[in-house]
Amino acid sequence: MNILQYLNVHNLSFAKFVVLPFPKKIMLRTHTCGELTIRDTGKNVTLCGWVQGTRDLGGMTFVDLRDRYGITQLLFNMDVNPALCERARTFGREFVVSATGKVTVRSNKNPKMVTGDIEIEVEELEILNASKTPPFTVEEQSDGGDDLRMKFRFIDLRRTPVQKNIILRHCLAQEVRNYFNKNNFLEIETPFLIKSTPEGARDFIVPSRMNPGQFYALPQSPQIFKQLLMVSGYDRYYQIVRCFRDEDLRADRQPEFTQIDCEMSFVTREDTLFMFEGMMKHLFRTIKNIELPDFPRINYDEAMAYYGTDKPDLRFGMKIEDITELVKGKGFKILDEAEFIGGICATGCSEYSRKQLDELTEYVKRPQIGAGGLIYVKFTPGDTVKSSVDKFYSADDLKRWGKIDNAKEGDLLLILAGKKVKTLKALSELRLEMGRRLNLMDREKFSPLWVINFPLFEWDEETQRWYAVHHPFTAPNPEDAHFIEGDPGRVRANAYDMVINGIELGGGSIRIHSRNMQERIFRRLGFSETEAQEKFGFLMKAFEFGAPPHGGIAFGFDRICALFGGSDSIRDFIAFPKNNAARDMMTDAPAQVTHDQLKELSLEITHPC
Amino acid sequence: MNILQYLNVHNLSFAKFVVLPFPKKIMLRTHTCGELTIRDTGKNVTLCGWVQGTRDLGGMTFVDLRDRYGITQLLFNMDVNPALCERARTFGREFVVSATGKVTVRSNKNPKMVTGDIEIEVEELEILNASKTPPFTVEEQSDGGDDLRMKFRFIDLRRTPVQKNIILRHCLAQEVRNYFNKNNFLEIETPFLIKSTPEGARDFIVPSRMNPGQFYALPQSPQIFKQLLMVSGYDRYYQIVRCFRDEDLRADRQPEFTQIDCEMSFVTREDTLFMFEGMMKHLFRTIKNIELPDFPRINYDEAMAYYGTDKPDLRFGMKIEDITELVKGKGFKILDEAEFIGGICATGCSEYSRKQLDELTEYVKRPQIGAGGLIYVKFTPGDTVKSSVDKFYSADDLKRWGKIDNAKEGDLLLILAGKKVKTLKALSELRLEMGRRLNLMDREKFSPLWVINFPLFEWDEETQRWYAVHHPFTAPNPEDAHFIEGDPGRVRANAYDMVINGIELGGGSIRIHSRNMQERIFRRLGFSETEAQEKFGFLMKAFEFGAPPHGGIAFGFDRICALFGGSDSIRDFIAFPKNNAARDMMTDAPAQVTHDQLKELSLEITHPC
Repeated sequence: MNILQYLNVHNLSFAKFVVLPFPKKIMLRTHTCGELTIRDTGKNVTLCGWVQGTRDLGGMTFVDLRDRYGITQLLFNMDVNPALCERARTFGREFVVSATGKVTVRSNKNPKMVTGDIEIEVEELEILNASKTPPFTVEEQSDGGDDLRMKFRFIDLRRTPVQKNIILRHCLAQEVRNYFNKNNFLEIETPFLIKSTPEGARDFIVPSRMNPGQFYALPQSPQIFKQLLMVSGYDRYYQIVRCFRDEDLRADRQPEFTQIDCEMSFVTREDTLFMFEGMMKHLFRTIKNIELPDFPRINYDEAMAYYGTDKPDLRFGMKIEDITELVKGKGFKILDEAEFIGGICATGCSEYSRKQLDELTEYVKRPQIGAGGLIYVKFTPGDTVKSSVDKFYSADDLKRWGKIDNAKEGDLLLILAGKKVKTLKALSELRLEMGRRLNLMDREKFSPLWVINFPLFEWDEETQRWYAVHHPFTAPNPEDAHFIEGDPGRVRANAYDMVINGIELGGGSIRIHSRNMQERIFRRLGFSETEAQEKFGFLMKAFEFGAPPHGGIAFGFDRICALFGGSDSIRDFIAFPKNNAARDMMTDAPAQVTHDQLKELSLEITHPC
Repeated sequence: MNILQYLNVHNLSFAKFVVLPFPKKIMLRTHTCGELTIRDTGKNVTLCGWVQGTRDLGGMTFVDLRDRYGITQLLFNMDVNPALCERARTFGREFVVSATGKVTVRSNKNPKMVTGDIEIEVEELEILNASKTPPFTVEEQSDGGDDLRMKFRFIDLRRTPVQKNIILRHCLAQEVRNYFNKNNFLEIETPFLIKSTPEGARDFIVPSRMNPGQFYALPQSPQIFKQLLMVSGYDRYYQIVRCFRDEDLRADRQPEFTQIDCEMSFVTREDTLFMFEGMMKHLFRTIKNIELPDFPRINYDEAMAYYGTDKPDLRFGMKIEDITELVKGKGFKILDEAEFIGGICATGCSEYSRKQLDELTEYVKRPQIGAGGLIYVKFTPGDTVKSSVDKFYSADDLKRWGKIDNAKEGDLLLILAGKKVKTLKALSELRLEMGRRLNLMDREKFSPLWVINFPLFEWDEETQRWYAVHHPFTAPNPEDAHFIEGDPGRVRANAYDMVINGIELGGGSIRIHSRNMQERIFRRLGFSETEAQEKFGFLMKAFEFGAPPHGGIAFGFDRICALFGGSDSIRDFIAFPKNNAARDMMTDAPAQVTHDQLKELSLEITHPC
């Protein structure tokens, strides 16, 4: 299936992009491989593309010629031009060829292809470039392993699913800009060689040759620059911009990633939520033809209590319920001593087998989740209950636990106990696992929400200090500001995260715009006056010269692409991604540099590899 | 004058951007400072903005309130609300205030402003943020010096001329994308952390913590990745992308700059010239309302011979003429021994004074130009000639030199002699100086051209080897390919530069797409097989797996902005530029990093600063 068809079949309205007429000023070809139909019969055309495959039927040879726009069938007839036909038979896969001939109606039409009604009776043929046999098949499902495909990324990028992702990304970027342009935002570029301010994640740093011993940092985000743009009166700013974090890479992290970065002046939280919710609705409308309803909002505290996470997947219910008080005091020591007992209700799962329950127990006991065990209660037919703790609890006791999600006959309660924070997190994972098992996580269903009223600070036991949950420029909720000095844990942030299907797509806040408030926050975070001045002196100075109230957001563009493309992996939506060791396997970067390069930078390697 | 007016006065059609209706979902304000007119009389409105200035007329106080969209006059009446009026009188420049009141018709209208017919009778007033007195005036012409304004860039960015530049840049970026999107190009992001290939300019490098002793480089351009995208079948690619070069900075260089990067497959030079000329025409049409004619093309050799440069300014003629043979042999030793003698004709300048001619002589003798002296010939009224070399040349001799640009009565010939390359370069500078003096370089006149048929290689005396004039991926003109090994200086490149008004805005070429040809070029450039393999092995491998013919261009986006904005300095079009020492004076980057940061990167500084 070609891209156009793929888009059509998936009802993706960005087909409008792909079907634009191809400009006719083309020297090596007259048409693409995706546009000729029965209306073009009789035309003399020249196509260029890659050989997808050849079929030799004795008297005739068919070649499928592929380009970004589609596939067109070339016909070579042994009776008409045996020499040409013989040449076509020498084509290997991925040869690049140019073919000239007449558009004719196919006898054996293929209704699944735009070009399926026609073929080209080839009269002239040129091999523009031969190809070795590719190391894996260039098909929807390739036979190449991950590493091989990453090493030959330039071939992998030819496969339809990858091409579709890259085109989707292009379309999303254009629609992001359309939205912000219509709303009077200015796209303004911010610098990449900036000052290192090691707070939060680790910076990539860049040695300066002209300033020996000094370094730039690559931006983790343009946060400070966009705030300065607000101070400068630009009012509404956006940018689709690369950002960098030198973190230990997990499955779906990249050392460089792309952010949709936005900021607005003279706004309250209502304005920013309205504007940025509008962006997401615009993307769904234009790219997926889906009208999203207004996004519900949920407090951070509620998200943690009901879903055990600050990015709940609301495609399904299965809320966590705290049943600590209900459970305790029946003489089962482990539970009586637990700080927290909570559970979820898996609708219609009362018939789960021993094996299924064992699997779930194994799941929650995995070290990443770390629960001690799993308690189940089956609400079986005939108003009976059956549980793994029948010894300690009467049927009436257990039925009372059924308040969890109003469990009914046929349902299954899954219960965990232990330290509150850890248990809630484990319940969150268990809830998602049940969502997967029960097919409640439809990739074509989208459940957006805002999480609001995050805490502003969190206490770190190890370093014995308060950290900013988002970043130190986030404004406190005005009514909580008086707690900053005395009871920082109570201060809620004027911040918000956009979550869809359990993925945090964006996070932002109303910012501090007063020097006095910014100083209070820096003090609370343990910055000395000197430190604050050295790192952020220019920002605090800027606040003294007419800083307006402002706020904004940053979206993870790679994640948005993955969500729209129905994938869990951002890597599939990046043309040249890095692997988990932060290496580009195709070019083999990073690599050693020359001694001269290091000398010019006044650097020495302390532990050469 | 506010921005909107500025745009209108300058007949800039990107006003269409600025006048879009402002979305009404705004909490802190109901309108901007640039939109209220007599049609809004009687409305209750809230505006937010910066105090541009206050005028106290005893009974009344006027405040000019400014935002990105314009200026609106606020009126405070001592008779109506003396307390409010007193408060308004305390406003300093750049205070951020919110004012609510009724739109009324002004008695003293200002037809130069969109909002000049109305004022706001203020009823409520809030100071959103006070401001210290800014260190320079926020006016069209500021009283602040360069360094001060760079240090307080967040204030300088408020000035109308700077704001106009940043808005122009935004508009240009959108129109670039509109053009390429319409032409089926895909915007594809390429990596920033890539492999260092020290060839051409110096790379910025980035130490890898996860791969100790190894480094990424920041891209000087996405050249190789865009070629790989063509190998991958993406057919048409573009990107507005940051690039990095660690060069010693001249007046108008920045260590990071922005490129419009493009590439197309299955094209010849005609296709790429057509497509990219089309982009520039589109920008002039949409942004400046100017229809450019088809771009003339000039061979590199002719550009050098007639203008002494490969980026001639064609807004005026004044071609250089080689008069070596005409001049020699009259016994004036210096000229008789010169390798080259050439001149230009300054129309209507025969009356130039001694002082003016001395100035020109000083000009060409400056070390950057380095001419030994300047010879002049005046074609004075009455068919007489007067020159600085009358002793050696008869009037008839001198009249024969008048073949330069067909000099007529009233004209002035300016002649330089010496080594050919150096003298042509000096004549080129002299020509531009005369263009400036004669006002032939109108900023609102645009003379585009293509320079084609560059040499592919140039010989470097110092290192005794051939270098690629553009880069090693440029294809030779097919008819010259057989000179690569034997006579590389004769090989012309299938390359092209776009030049407007003497500024090289873009350069590109048809690329090599065959492994064999790429290997020949690498060999010619003196790369060993191992070197070529190590640096560009993946590219040569890619050429073995179906690389199509392809070509492209990269435009200097900062330069395009400067040209459209009528400025010589790209720095004026960058929100946060660096100075000539590659420093950001506002944030004071680069800076020292912590010992821990270096240790994690296995690095040591050899000469701490």
